[in-house]
Amino acid sequence: MKAIEQYQITINEFIAANKFNKFPQELYEPLDYIMALGGKRMRPVMVLMACDLMNGKMEDAVHAAMAIETFHNFTLIHDDIMDNAPVRRGKTTVHEKWNVNTAILSGDVMLIEAYALLMIYENDLMRSILNIFNKSAIEVCEGQQIDMNFESRVDVSLSEYIHMITLKTAVVLGASLEVGALIAGVSKKQAQHLYEFGKNMGIAFQLRDDYLDLYADPEKFGKQVGGDVIANKKTFMLIKALELAKDNDAIELNKWLQAATFNASEKVEAINNIFDRLAIPQLLNDAVTHYADLAWKEFAQIEASLEKKEMMADFMNGLLAREV
Amino acid sequence: MKAIEQYQITINEFIAANKFNKFPQELYEPLDYIMALGGKRMRPVMVLMACDLMNGKMEDAVHAAMAIETFHNFTLIHDDIMDNAPVRRGKTTVHEKWNVNTAILSGDVMLIEAYALLMIYENDLMRSILNIFNKSAIEVCEGQQIDMNFESRVDVSLSEYIHMITLKTAVVLGASLEVGALIAGVSKKQAQHLYEFGKNMGIAFQLRDDYLDLYADPEKFGKQVGGDVIANKKTFMLIKALELAKDNDAIELNKWLQAATFNASEKVEAINNIFDRLAIPQLLNDAVTHYADLAWKEFAQIEASLEKKEMMADFMNGLLAREV
Repeated sequence: MKAIEQYQITINEFIAANKFNKFPQELYEPLDYIMALGGKRMRPVMVLMACDLMNGKMEDAVHAAMAIETFHNFTLIHDDIMDNAPVRRGKTTVHEKWNVNTAILSGDVMLIEAYALLMIYENDLMRSILNIFNKSAIEVCEGQQIDMNFESRVDVSLSEYIHMITLKTAVVLGASLEVGALIAGVSKKQAQHLYEFGKNMGIAFQLRDDYLDLYADPEKFGKQVGGDVIANKKTFMLIKALELAKDNDAIELNKWLQAATFNASEKVEAINNIFDRLAIPQLLNDAVTHYADLAWKEFAQIEASLEKKEMMADFMNGLLAREV
Repeated sequence: MKAIEQYQITINEFIAANKFNKFPQELYEPLDYIMALGGKRMRPVMVLMACDLMNGKMEDAVHAAMAIETFHNFTLIHDDIMDNAPVRRGKTTVHEKWNVNTAILSGDVMLIEAYALLMIYENDLMRSILNIFNKSAIEVCEGQQIDMNFESRVDVSLSEYIHMITLKTAVVLGASLEVGALIAGVSKKQAQHLYEFGKNMGIAFQLRDDYLDLYADPEKFGKQVGGDVIANKKTFMLIKALELAKDNDAIELNKWLQAATFNASEKVEAINNIFDRLAIPQLLNDAVTHYADLAWKEFAQIEASLEKKEMMADFMNGLLAREV
């Protein structure tokens, strides 16, 4: 197994050496732009790591890793339109830098290019990967729609929320590990353990994200602390607070949720206090632990060298414990 | 071979029996809505016809036909957003009936569903179909971008225009015939003749569309006569007129193109007169004949029964000669 940075370098080198850079440039420039924005490359790194973990050749997994990274960046372009987001990774979003039409069309062609990357695999493997890819891609769209539906709902249950984040973010992490393992030639059963490991870790990561919205180090946090709170976003914390709040807490919480105008930091502080009184941070950390435990149970079933498994475990623990 | 209506019925029955109708309904309702809007089903009919022509079983081609129809409807949803179109086949467009976000996301999942339909084919055939599908889908996006670029250009050449309509509309017709033929088990060479036949016919059809903008029977024409002229759309006719107009015609044509406010029917009549003086309708019909001739040369290379070829030829001639 290699250090994480080594996988990231492999991905970034592939991106740099395989720019789309085709005609018409108005269509393809946004693809090269967003692919070059960087990020942790978590998904493609997971494809490469899983292949490596299961004794495959990392080079064999690069195209599948790139297909998933290309797909992921397609979702970012379209999600940023839907969220009306001006900035992504510190840079102007595609629909702001160009326009909405270009962002729609460049996203579309990017999704097709993701499929095209998978054509390199031999028949049976290509079919297996395509089945996982289609299923996960459909689930990501479903998760995004369910998330948008939550905006106009006040009665989102915790299980609905977990279902949404599973579809919107966790399944692709599961799929990344599964695909990497299949390229290494493992059994369907082993691949399934990797999928479940990644999916449950993905849920834990997303819950950790929810936590970091309020409790990240503001110095290191790239975005506004409390952004989810300000926007009334139905995250684990708000849903749990709405479920548990009684009497004055319930009244105050609903007052803030319904306030049309407010001072942002006052709102963040007030809701933060309610969360504290209801022990929401503790409950959230319990939930993170719960899904991480489910993940580790799957991990225990994976038949690989102890040394390699330790590196994979370190990687996942690093993501679970991140402060920003 | 069957009558065209029989192929259309097969497609419409499949659509009715295979509604998406999944959760979340906000995501899938637009898919069933646009698929039910109908239309001539030209592309899937061509898949089925080509399979039949080359002695394949029509049933084997239904999934590929549906994949191409599903892909086509995905492009309609996204194109209608980009064109800000309120109406499609007499009904409200998806982004108007729901909203832009839903139209983006439902279109996305529709493209993935199109791929999923192709998974039914055995390995080698699936790979062949996917290669054609990826290539054509990418070209359609490129064509759409080039078409959008034309809006802000005044110097579009005829060859650029033919290239644009080839990508945006003709390649999918070629791909439809090619895929149908491959499902019937023909050689790559025969499949290529079918592709070129469909592609060149597609160019001829699009040129015929350009002609019908001005010369269709207004009683039967579903849309505003002269819509392209009013919008300064760079079609064959306008590009050719800009190329040929001299002296007063050139001055008058440019006056109308630059007019910010104008009476629509006056503009249509004036430009119509210029087109007549320059014999544009005749030149357009010559171009239709040119591309149809290229198509028929490919058709002559196709090895199929005379009876079946005659039916295919009748179908194509019907589309070439249509008045609306």
